[in-house]
Amino acid sequence: MANFRLTLEYDGSEFAGWQVQPGESRTVQGVLEEALARVTGETVRVTGAGRTDAGVHAEAQVANVRVETALGADTLRRALNGVLPRDVAVRSLEEAPEGFHARRDARRKHYRYRIWNGPAPSPLRRGRFLRVEAPLDRIAMQCAADACVGRHDFTSLRASRSDARTSVRTLERVTVGEPSPGEIEIEVVGEGFLRHMVRILVGTLVEVGRGRRAPHSMAGVLAARDRAAAGPTAPGRGLTLERVDY
Amino acid sequence: MANFRLTLEYDGSEFAGWQVQPGESRTVQGVLEEALARVTGETVRVTGAGRTDAGVHAEAQVANVRVETALGADTLRRALNGVLPRDVAVRSLEEAPEGFHARRDARRKHYRYRIWNGPAPSPLRRGRFLRVEAPLDRIAMQCAADACVGRHDFTSLRASRSDARTSVRTLERVTVGEPSPGEIEIEVVGEGFLRHMVRILVGTLVEVGRGRRAPHSMAGVLAARDRAAAGPTAPGRGLTLERVDY
Repeated sequence: MANFRLTLEYDGSEFAGWQVQPGESRTVQGVLEEALARVTGETVRVTGAGRTDAGVHAEAQVANVRVETALGADTLRRALNGVLPRDVAVRSLEEAPEGFHARRDARRKHYRYRIWNGPAPSPLRRGRFLRVEAPLDRIAMQCAADACVGRHDFTSLRASRSDARTSVRTLERVTVGEPSPGEIEIEVVGEGFLRHMVRILVGTLVEVGRGRRAPHSMAGVLAARDRAAAGPTAPGRGLTLERVDY
Repeated sequence: MANFRLTLEYDGSEFAGWQVQPGESRTVQGVLEEALARVTGETVRVTGAGRTDAGVHAEAQVANVRVETALGADTLRRALNGVLPRDVAVRSLEEAPEGFHARRDARRKHYRYRIWNGPAPSPLRRGRFLRVEAPLDRIAMQCAADACVGRHDFTSLRASRSDARTSVRTLERVTVGEPSPGEIEIEVVGEGFLRHMVRILVGTLVEVGRGRRAPHSMAGVLAARDRAAAGPTAPGRGLTLERVDY
């Protein structure tokens, strides 16, 4: 029984998120477990570093799976890519130490949220970006973002259905950039995240950018420890899990 | 009767190309003319700077249309974007001089062809990139590309069905770059192009990159003045019309 570590890229548009759900939902985990069953003949359970929501993409999600197979790592990777649908691929696959656990061992995750702030819709960006028509004040957004860096109780930025034991998390970096005119990218790096935390953070920053909240209001949002104090949950399609560090 | 100049962005994936065709094909021109009819009540003919093929995208195709309307340019732009499908948008629209003609007045077009040359499929790039699995020698491709710059008879890189009077064209620039690991981008700039010319050029450069043709073979390909001397026509989905200069 080998323990394999997989790095996965997927377009989240047609997935109901990472995690297998009761019922007929199409999930990344489900599609991957099906592919593994076809290739190895074994029924397996895949563990992901994080549970991405419906619509959320990944450049490099990490997962591990214990499976009995005579196939070498490179053969297994090619065989999986041969049967996986076009919206998910195994970028790399290698044998990991017996104890490696993709979720528990993850030290840091890198997310990027993309916003298209141009004056017209952008057909070429539509699956990867949230469009915001009103002009956004990027400097005001960065000011609000700065208040989130460090160790805080993020109850206000947590989905009401979240079931984590504690709401205290540490964010290492929240930057609001504009790599090209009209493209606003929010990069969020931290050791761990609560359910919907990045999307609620982005929804709140967009309200700041539109002038509906003051740039300096974010500390008060966090201090309220109340989901109602924050902005709406931004849609999943703008979000990409870019990297997981171990 | 005002003459409007439009700049259009579209995702070519679901279009049978720019030009209206006999039958039921969904074309960018057709969809745009329908939107103009709905918004202005007039039946109009739109002229595009170039006829992009099926699957080819545009960041900034330019078109012009003569239409009788009381709407101002900005109102017309917003109204069109309100009725256009999600895969095409009017980025800008302004009143042009009476004589402005999007095709005849175009001085230069900028195309970019994207190739994904990574070891695994890339779901997030699949609609915009051609995947080539064999490693490409970018330097060899650039060497072959250099032979195409300047004024040449491009009969060898011309679709057999092409009906242009002359096959002589001038290419100002053909560069083969690698903006990030595994992403090969071929930028082609010229005053005018023959039918399928960029895609046949790319198909030939890919054969050079794979070592199936010598880097210095391109001059001979052009000298042959024979479509059979060049490589296959690369698929439309990797190609984007990026800009038209006037």
